[in-house]
Amino acid sequence: MKQHSNKPEQVTVAYQLLRWTVLVLPVALIVGSLVALFLWLLDKATKIRFEHGWLLYLLPVAGVLIYWLYRLGGRNAEKGNNLIMDEIHQPGGGVPARMAPLVLLTTVITHLFGGSAGREGTAVQIGGSMAAWTGKTLGLTQRDIRILLMTGIAAGFGAVFGTPIAGTVFALEVLAIGAMRYDALVPCLIAAVLADVVCSAWGISHTHYQILYTSTHLTPYVPFVKADLLLLLKVIVVGVAFGLTSFLFSWLIHAIKHNANTYIKIPWLIPVVGGVMIITMTFIAGTRDYLGLGVYSQSPDGISIVNAFRNTGTISDWSWLWKLVFTAVTLGMGFKGGEVTPLFFMGATLGHTLALLLGAPVDLFAGLGFIAVFAGATNTPLACTLMGVELFGADHVLYFAVACFTAYYFSGHSGIYASQKLVVSKFYSNPESGR
Amino acid sequence: MKQHSNKPEQVTVAYQLLRWTVLVLPVALIVGSLVALFLWLLDKATKIRFEHGWLLYLLPVAGVLIYWLYRLGGRNAEKGNNLIMDEIHQPGGGVPARMAPLVLLTTVITHLFGGSAGREGTAVQIGGSMAAWTGKTLGLTQRDIRILLMTGIAAGFGAVFGTPIAGTVFALEVLAIGAMRYDALVPCLIAAVLADVVCSAWGISHTHYQILYTSTHLTPYVPFVKADLLLLLKVIVVGVAFGLTSFLFSWLIHAIKHNANTYIKIPWLIPVVGGVMIITMTFIAGTRDYLGLGVYSQSPDGISIVNAFRNTGTISDWSWLWKLVFTAVTLGMGFKGGEVTPLFFMGATLGHTLALLLGAPVDLFAGLGFIAVFAGATNTPLACTLMGVELFGADHVLYFAVACFTAYYFSGHSGIYASQKLVVSKFYSNPESGR
Repeated sequence: MKQHSNKPEQVTVAYQLLRWTVLVLPVALIVGSLVALFLWLLDKATKIRFEHGWLLYLLPVAGVLIYWLYRLGGRNAEKGNNLIMDEIHQPGGGVPARMAPLVLLTTVITHLFGGSAGREGTAVQIGGSMAAWTGKTLGLTQRDIRILLMTGIAAGFGAVFGTPIAGTVFALEVLAIGAMRYDALVPCLIAAVLADVVCSAWGISHTHYQILYTSTHLTPYVPFVKADLLLLLKVIVVGVAFGLTSFLFSWLIHAIKHNANTYIKIPWLIPVVGGVMIITMTFIAGTRDYLGLGVYSQSPDGISIVNAFRNTGTISDWSWLWKLVFTAVTLGMGFKGGEVTPLFFMGATLGHTLALLLGAPVDLFAGLGFIAVFAGATNTPLACTLMGVELFGADHVLYFAVACFTAYYFSGHSGIYASQKLVVSKFYSNPESGR
Repeated sequence: MKQHSNKPEQVTVAYQLLRWTVLVLPVALIVGSLVALFLWLLDKATKIRFEHGWLLYLLPVAGVLIYWLYRLGGRNAEKGNNLIMDEIHQPGGGVPARMAPLVLLTTVITHLFGGSAGREGTAVQIGGSMAAWTGKTLGLTQRDIRILLMTGIAAGFGAVFGTPIAGTVFALEVLAIGAMRYDALVPCLIAAVLADVVCSAWGISHTHYQILYTSTHLTPYVPFVKADLLLLLKVIVVGVAFGLTSFLFSWLIHAIKHNANTYIKIPWLIPVVGGVMIITMTFIAGTRDYLGLGVYSQSPDGISIVNAFRNTGTISDWSWLWKLVFTAVTLGMGFKGGEVTPLFFMGATLGHTLALLLGAPVDLFAGLGFIAVFAGATNTPLACTLMGVELFGADHVLYFAVACFTAYYFSGHSGIYASQKLVVSKFYSNPESGR
C-alpha cells in the first residue's frame, strides 16, 4: 500500500468505487438483459411443453443435439460453473464468451423437451462468460478480470432470482467451503443490484412466495426474543433432513455422471440413455410434474414449488425424492441447466411433508426447505439466509438461519460444485480447522 | 480427516453438534444471565443519573475508582475486546474470569456518573471471559477454548441487543478485515440464540425502533425489483458519510488514547482529566443528552437514538459530532463501556440530519446510520446488514446492505479494534488483495 501512503485511504477507495461502477456497468447491462431473455424463453419453452406433451419423447434426440452443440462450441465451455470458479481461484485459459449463448440455448432445449433442471447455473454461466468477455474487450489485467468474474456470478444470480443481496453474498461464499473473502464485496453488490434492475426493466417479474404463518408465541416487533422453542427444535430436525437431502443429491449426481462415463463408451449415447430414463420414470411416477423447472405445474393443483407452500394435499410424501432423482438423471446424463430451482423444489416439498408429519406450519417449513437444501448443496448458508429474507421477509429470519446453518453443517464436504475449495472443515475439532 | 474415513461424515457432524450444544449451554446460561443483570443495572444507573444531576461532577472521581479497580483486578483484563480477539487468533495467557465482573462494574460506574459509552464491548467481554472460564473449568483443549471464546462473543452480542443472528455473524466477521471463516458457525448460533432466550427470560426487553417509510416506487411483495434509483443514490451518498464518520471516530479515539498516555505521566490523572473534559463539554454543548447510553433522553423530546427516528426537530445538525467527541473522550481517557451504542447514536443522528438535507425519509436514514456507522467502525458489514433485518424488518434490506457495505468500504483499514487482522485490503487492485 506504499503508493497510497501520502494520500488518505478514502481517496483510493472513492477512485476504486467509481472505477468499478464504470467497469461493472456493461456487465450488469449485458447480464441483466441476457437473463431477462433467458427467463422469457424459459417461460415460453415451459408453456409450449405443457401444450405439446409429445415433445417429451424427443428428449433423447434433444440430448444428442445438446451434445453436438457443445462438441461444436468448444469443450471447455462444458465445465460450466466449475470453470468460472477455477478461473477465479487460479486464472488459466479464461472463460470463453461462447459459454453464454451455448448454455442459454441448451438449457432452453433441456426445458422444452422436459428435462428436470434449473436456472441458476445457466444465469451464473451467462454472468461469468459475459464478465470475462467484457474484461477482455476492455483490456483489463488478470486480477481485474478475476474480480469481474465474481461480479458476473453476482449479477447472474441476483437477476435470475430477483435477490441481489443473496447474489452478492453467494458470489463470495460459493468459492470456498467454510470461509468467505470480501475481495469484491462492493463491485458484486453494484453488479447484482444493477443486473436485477435491468432484468426487471425488461418486464420480467419473479414468482413470489408467501409465508403467512406468524407464531402466537412471539412478542410483537421483537419476535425473536421470545422464541417458540418447540418450533425451533422442529426447525433443527428438518434442518438435518434438508442437509442430508443436499448430501444425497450431490452424491447421486456425481455417481450418475461417473457411472455414465464409465459404462457408456459412446459419449452421445449418454444423453440418449438419460432421455429414455426420464421418459420411463415419468411413466412410473405417473405424473409430468417432475419435469422442467417445477415452479408451477401444468394443472393448478399439481405438484410444484408454489403448491408446496399450500396445504391442499397435492404434494406426495416422496415428491422430494422423485424430483431429486429426475434432476440427478437430467443433469448427470448431460442435459443443461441449473441445480438450484430443483433444489428449491426438493426442499419445499420435503419441508411440506415434514411439516405435516411434525405438526408444524406448512408454508414456513416449505420456505425453510426452499432455502436450506440449496444452502447445503452449495455450502452457502449466509447467502441462503439472506435469500430467505429477500423472498419471504424478516419475520422468520431466525428460523431461516437455523435451518440453513444446520443443513450446511449436515451436507458433508462435497456439494454440487467440484471446484469449491475446502478452507475450514465442518468438524470443528480437527487439526485442519485450527489456524 | 483420516480418523473419520470409515464412517459417514454426518455421524461426526451429529456428534459435534451434540457436543457443542452441551458445551455451549453453560456459556449461554451464564452470559445471558449476566447480560440481563448488566442491562438491568445500566437502566437503574441511567435513571439514578437522571434524578441526581450532581453525579456528573463526581465523574473524575469515578475515573480514579475505575483506574484503581483495574489496577487491583489485573492489568491484562484492561485489554478488553482486543485480548479476546488476540486469544482467538493466537492462544496465549487466556482470558481472565475477573474480566467479566470488572467490566460490568466499571461500565455501570461510567454510566452512573455520566460517561458517554455503550454496552456491546462490555457484553462481549462478559461473554468472552465467561466462555474462557467455562472452557478452563471443563478442562477443554486450547482449540476448543478458542471456539468457545467465539461463542462467548456471539452470546454476549446476541443477548445485549436481542439480535442473535447478527451476534453469530459478528463473532466470525469481527476477527479479520475482508474475510470470514466459518470455524464456529453453528456453535456461535446456538450460543447466541440461547443467550438471547435466557436474557429475555429474565424479563429484559430491548428498545424497538420502527421504520414506517415505504416507497411508493416499489412493487408489493418484491419491493427490491423496482428499486427507487434516486433513493438508492442517496443511500450511497450517506453510506460514504457514515463510513467517514466511522473513520473519524476510530482515528479520534486512538489519537486521544495516544496523546493522553504521552502527555499525562501519572496514569490515574488520565480519567480525572477525561472527567473534567466531559463536564466542560457538557456546559459548552448546553445539554446532558450526550452523556450515557443515549438510547432515550431525560426529557421525552431530548436528543436520543429513539428521537432520531422521528422528525420532530429535536436533533441538531451537529448532534452526531458531539456524541462522537463525548464518546471518544470517555473511552479514550480510561472509562469503560462499549462503543456500539454511541455508534448507533452518531449514525442515527447523522442519518436524521442528512435525510432532512437530501429530502429523504428520516426514519429510514436514521436506521441506515444506526447500522452503517457501526459496520464501518467494526468492519462487519454482513453482521450489520443482518442486524438491520433483525431490528427493522426486511422491507429495506437492499438499502441496509448498500449503506453498510459502502460505509465499510470508506471507513479505512483501522477500525476500533486494534486486534483485527487485515486479510483482504479494501483496495481491490492492490497486490495484497490478490487471492
